[in-house]
Amino acid sequence: MSKVVRIGIIGAGRIGKLHAENITKFVKSVEVVGISDVLMNEQMEAWAKGLGIRVVTKEAMDLIKHPDIDAIMVCSSTATHADYTIAAAKEGKHIFCEKPIDLSVKKGLEAIKAAKAHKVKLQLGFNRRFDHNFRQVRELTKTGKVGDVHIVKITSRDPAPPTAAYAAVSGGIFLDMMIHDFDMARYQAGSEIVSVHATGAVLVDPEIGKAGDVDTAIVTLTFANGAIGVIDNSRKAVYGYDQRVEVFGSKGCAKAENDTPSTVTLSTVEHVAADKPLYFFLERYKDAFVDEVVSFAQAIVEDTDVLVSGEDGLEDMVAALAAGKSLKEGKPVTIAEMKKELGL
Amino acid sequence: MSKVVRIGIIGAGRIGKLHAENITKFVKSVEVVGISDVLMNEQMEAWAKGLGIRVVTKEAMDLIKHPDIDAIMVCSSTATHADYTIAAAKEGKHIFCEKPIDLSVKKGLEAIKAAKAHKVKLQLGFNRRFDHNFRQVRELTKTGKVGDVHIVKITSRDPAPPTAAYAAVSGGIFLDMMIHDFDMARYQAGSEIVSVHATGAVLVDPEIGKAGDVDTAIVTLTFANGAIGVIDNSRKAVYGYDQRVEVFGSKGCAKAENDTPSTVTLSTVEHVAADKPLYFFLERYKDAFVDEVVSFAQAIVEDTDVLVSGEDGLEDMVAALAAGKSLKEGKPVTIAEMKKELGL
Amino acid sequence: MSKVVRIGIIGAGRIGKLHAENITKFVKSVEVVGISDVLMNEQMEAWAKGLGIRVVTKEAMDLIKHPDIDAIMVCSSTATHADYTIAAAKEGKHIFCEKPIDLSVKKGLEAIKAAKAHKVKLQLGFNRRFDHNFRQVRELTKTGKVGDVHIVKITSRDPAPPTAAYAAVSGGIFLDMMIHDFDMARYQAGSEIVSVHATGAVLVDPEIGKAGDVDTAIVTLTFANGAIGVIDNSRKAVYGYDQRVEVFGSKGCAKAENDTPSTVTLSTVEHVAADKPLYFFLERYKDAFVDEVVSFAQAIVEDTDVLVSGEDGLEDMVAALAAGKSLKEGKPVTIAEMKKELGL
Amino acid sequence: MSKVVRIGIIGAGRIGKLHAENITKFVKSVEVVGISDVLMNEQMEAWAKGLGIRVVTKEAMDLIKHPDIDAIMVCSSTATHADYTIAAAKEGKHIFCEKPIDLSVKKGLEAIKAAKAHKVKLQLGFNRRFDHNFRQVRELTKTGKVGDVHIVKITSRDPAPPTAAYAAVSGGIFLDMMIHDFDMARYQAGSEIVSVHATGAVLVDPEIGKAGDVDTAIVTLTFANGAIGVIDNSRKAVYGYDQRVEVFGSKGCAKAENDTPSTVTLSTVEHVAADKPLYFFLERYKDAFVDEVVSFAQAIVEDTDVLVSGEDGLEDMVAALAAGKSLKEGKPVTIAEMKKELGL
Repeated sequence: MSKVVRIGIIGAGRIGKLHAENITKFVKSVEVVGISDVLMNEQMEAWAKGLGIRVVTKEAMDLIKHPDIDAIMVCSSTATHADYTIAAAKEGKHIFCEKPIDLSVKKGLEAIKAAKAHKVKLQLGFNRRFDHNFRQVRELTKTGKVGDVHIVKITSRDPAPPTAAYAAVSGGIFLDMMIHDFDMARYQAGSEIVSVHATGAVLVDPEIGKAGDVDTAIVTLTFANGAIGVIDNSRKAVYGYDQRVEVFGSKGCAKAENDTPSTVTLSTVEHVAADKPLYFFLERYKDAFVDEVVSFAQAIVEDTDVLVSGEDGLEDMVAALAAGKSLKEGKPVTIAEMKKELGL
Repeated sequence: MSKVVRIGIIGAGRIGKLHAENITKFVKSVEVVGISDVLMNEQMEAWAKGLGIRVVTKEAMDLIKHPDIDAIMVCSSTATHADYTIAAAKEGKHIFCEKPIDLSVKKGLEAIKAAKAHKVKLQLGFNRRFDHNFRQVRELTKTGKVGDVHIVKITSRDPAPPTAAYAAVSGGIFLDMMIHDFDMARYQAGSEIVSVHATGAVLVDPEIGKAGDVDTAIVTLTFANGAIGVIDNSRKAVYGYDQRVEVFGSKGCAKAENDTPSTVTLSTVEHVAADKPLYFFLERYKDAFVDEVVSFAQAIVEDTDVLVSGEDGLEDMVAALAAGKSLKEGKPVTIAEMKKELGL
Repeated sequence: MSKVVRIGIIGAGRIGKLHAENITKFVKSVEVVGISDVLMNEQMEAWAKGLGIRVVTKEAMDLIKHPDIDAIMVCSSTATHADYTIAAAKEGKHIFCEKPIDLSVKKGLEAIKAAKAHKVKLQLGFNRRFDHNFRQVRELTKTGKVGDVHIVKITSRDPAPPTAAYAAVSGGIFLDMMIHDFDMARYQAGSEIVSVHATGAVLVDPEIGKAGDVDTAIVTLTFANGAIGVIDNSRKAVYGYDQRVEVFGSKGCAKAENDTPSTVTLSTVEHVAADKPLYFFLERYKDAFVDEVVSFAQAIVEDTDVLVSGEDGLEDMVAALAAGKSLKEGKPVTIAEMKKELGL
Repeated sequence: MSKVVRIGIIGAGRIGKLHAENITKFVKSVEVVGISDVLMNEQMEAWAKGLGIRVVTKEAMDLIKHPDIDAIMVCSSTATHADYTIAAAKEGKHIFCEKPIDLSVKKGLEAIKAAKAHKVKLQLGFNRRFDHNFRQVRELTKTGKVGDVHIVKITSRDPAPPTAAYAAVSGGIFLDMMIHDFDMARYQAGSEIVSVHATGAVLVDPEIGKAGDVDTAIVTLTFANGAIGVIDNSRKAVYGYDQRVEVFGSKGCAKAENDTPSTVTLSTVEHVAADKPLYFFLERYKDAFVDEVVSFAQAIVEDTDVLVSGEDGLEDMVAALAAGKSLKEGKPVTIAEMKKELGL
């Protein structure tokens, strides 16, 4: 394999486009050879050609089977994640799969097995692990500065809710939004989740409630290493994307505050006003989206473990499903019972 | 009644002494006429006389029945709170009672009824409501700046755990420590708690575990107004007393950070170092301890409602008991069922 | 001498009243025995009696000669500072003299000599040396954390200008306002000022310009230890009292930011808004006003050096006069030439 | 002219390389067609080819005369800036010239005239004007949020001093380092400098003193609009690059703090530790280096004024020379007298 990892991207939606542009502009170690989308049209094709992408197609299999492609990024709709992952694994391609690993955990599990069987890398798109702030918090814990972990606290609030239509198909707040935080919680705790308890409310948009979902939620967690944790989510923080992490332990507390466009404050007769947080994930995790791809390519070239594995993706998904069940049943749910129920 | 409220303090332990000294030094509208303690000795007497306190006695009833005393501060051991409150009410004295209202909720309820029956004021010692930071957060919510309340988040961590012996008799982390946070949560939400779910762990001191208590806990809350909330407690934050409150709503988020001894930072080759938070409650709530007494005297002189009522104290206690039950049973507990169980 | 220092206050204006009330409320080691004011009237007398002050008089000498008084606080108009200081020294009374030491440096010098000759303490009222923030900055420098001092930066801005009438008699911005900063600069540098260069402008109130003064000024300093420094003053910071200090050295930089009423921020769709600084010197230096008196009493009782000497007051005054001369002549002025010109 | 601006870079030293890589990676509207360096060697050539640069040469004139090149970036040694600018202007090429405009102000003036005569754009490389923080401060002033400008304060400290050898040829602290701050001061004040007064010291490295320069300096400024200002420089801030700007006015104060690698704090038993500032200009002004080139290309394509003109560069240089003269002569120097002396 050449040192530059040649990639095919399946799905040219928002996230597929983001990766294509990021790689073209910022990632020297990766080349986007092809892109596919079931809705490929002239405009999309022009955009792809403009980025220097050679293979532009409607057929994902054109990429999966392409001899000049080393790895596949699965950026298509969630229901197709496992299928494309398995197909790519069979062709010996490494896989970067957007989160969640699939709508079905069983198929997710099969995807993981397929990657293992065919000895290809499988990385999940939990980009926040590559964020400069959260990585620094983890670093402080890993190097012992925080001591034993006692409490993990995550605040994660979106600037604006999705449409009720989207909410309906997205799998709900836990699978669509909080799944990032379950992954972050496991990453920061350095331990697996044992049980979850979810509290939720419809306070932002009644339509979300009608679709059977909540828009505001707090989930408490227990971890295998004895630590406990809490995640709070809201679909609408009017001041912008609120992304904070705190790890409290026996030797101290590491805390990451929001990022802002500037460090400027304006003191007036009314108050001292500072910037709002960066608006949403595109702004906030701009560098993290690049770094996760760089890291993926490095794992391939140096043949090392990826930093977010398929197993991670599966654990996160089980936690999300357990949270949904907890909310529905009004009681804590263990990961063990959830896995049993899911036949894992 | 004179404009200066003449007070008798029952109990000359840490908190009774604190009030006596605060009033003598800082509160013009209150005079400490007498103080009692079952263990009154020469040294304590000298201290009291040095503050200009005239009546120094072993007998609480000497103060309760004293004609020159308008109000009683109950600072004795928790098991005696309701008894002294009832006795004082019968003598027509106003009462400031330290938290919790009693070890028994039934007796607490009787104390409230007695104060009502005898038309005297009854204020509970939840001093944090008078804290400059938390009052400002509440003010922003009350004046509509935060909009509808969606999430209330409280972090409350002590710098060092009590002895296991103390932990054993204190009623545990929920009744002894988190009861302040239940009160703060109700105050900030502007609404009553509907249900609680507690998660806990023994991570600080195994002795606390042996005594049947936990030292690290997260409790989620639902409120009557639809909001949800979370409190996290630790008995040991090595960096000092960690007291933060956040109210997130439809129009914004009000957040109070810790207080520090100074605003100074030192930038060196290693890092930018700032002060740790103020060490513990004596430092952190120094002014709040004064302000709650000033407020109590004002309520008496102007015949207005006290800002923290006996009913507040009872609600906080029920929430604490419900949290304990939730932890024990591993499931959420509603305040309604807890009250029913308590015969309230 | 008793352990409680018995004090007589000359002058019952704003600052005299402040000291009287502070001592009565907060300072156990000092008793205000008497107070005098040339304009003493019924209302002032009632106020004084209300504080428990026994001797209330129009005659300063009644206090200076009173056998029950150990020390005198000179809070009268500046032109009388040295005269009262000298008179008190002759009677063997210790002296706390408000800044500046006098309108005349020669008389200031005589006052210092008188205190020396009669072996009484003479402390100047530069309260900011007792401020928690600035003391912490100094502590970091003194303990070597900052290394050798290279740059001292002081920002000092008032919330509102004085009346032009006051500005006219106050001695101007350097003698009235920046004199505090010259003292702070010497304190933080740990070294004497060698030369000053002043730049000024009339940007706040044209009346101040008509009175021959400026309302906005920047003064650069050189120190005997080789460090350099800068002070910026404005008579009007609409956001409140702006009091910051920064000491930059070979090992780091210690920086004190403003104090605020609370630590609360409000994040909204517009910005993240924090508190303005504490409004003015009464709020900002509340504790420092108390601490300087406690320190004075301690110096008397323990017979140690005062922390702000008469010589300090004289040096500060020379620096202020040199700044005025520099502004007028448009060139730097050395302290040596200024002293020579003043006959010191 | 095509919409993509085709550029030739003269000089492949640190700054030339930086621009070449930035453009290749991040700037779609610019193409680097050629690069020249008098010391061009194999390694440099390989690097250039790797970036896709077609013309690699020792001869600057090869670029200046190249038909496929629209604009020239002058990144060669300072003594050659004006010569290359003039040559490029004669060929009708637009010019981006690194600061300062030349070692000789006369030649700098000729360069400006040449660009005017040949109707090409001339932009100076004062990248800090494109910094997100400082642009936001300027924006607040420009939109009236700060009111009339009263005081401009700039802190600018390098993490480590240059070699004494470099210091000797760089023109000294004012021409090499503070020239950026003179430009920032003029930009933030929205007004020209009228006079400067410099104070300096050798506190970091005696060798710098031996070379006739200072390493620590404070310069006060007066502006044509009546505002006053101050800049402080140090060649060595052990905690990293210290870049702060403050504009104080009649309606408020806009302040930009340092940028840091993360927002993380670590609270321990010792202190609350935050990140040091970003290390040096490559990290701190990473985006600004890109944005200034984007802005230059935009000015060419849209035929609008550049944001940092040749005249700006000349004014900054005169201010730097005036500061040097002020330090030497120990008195303030007006820009008018400096210009007269320089024959401008």
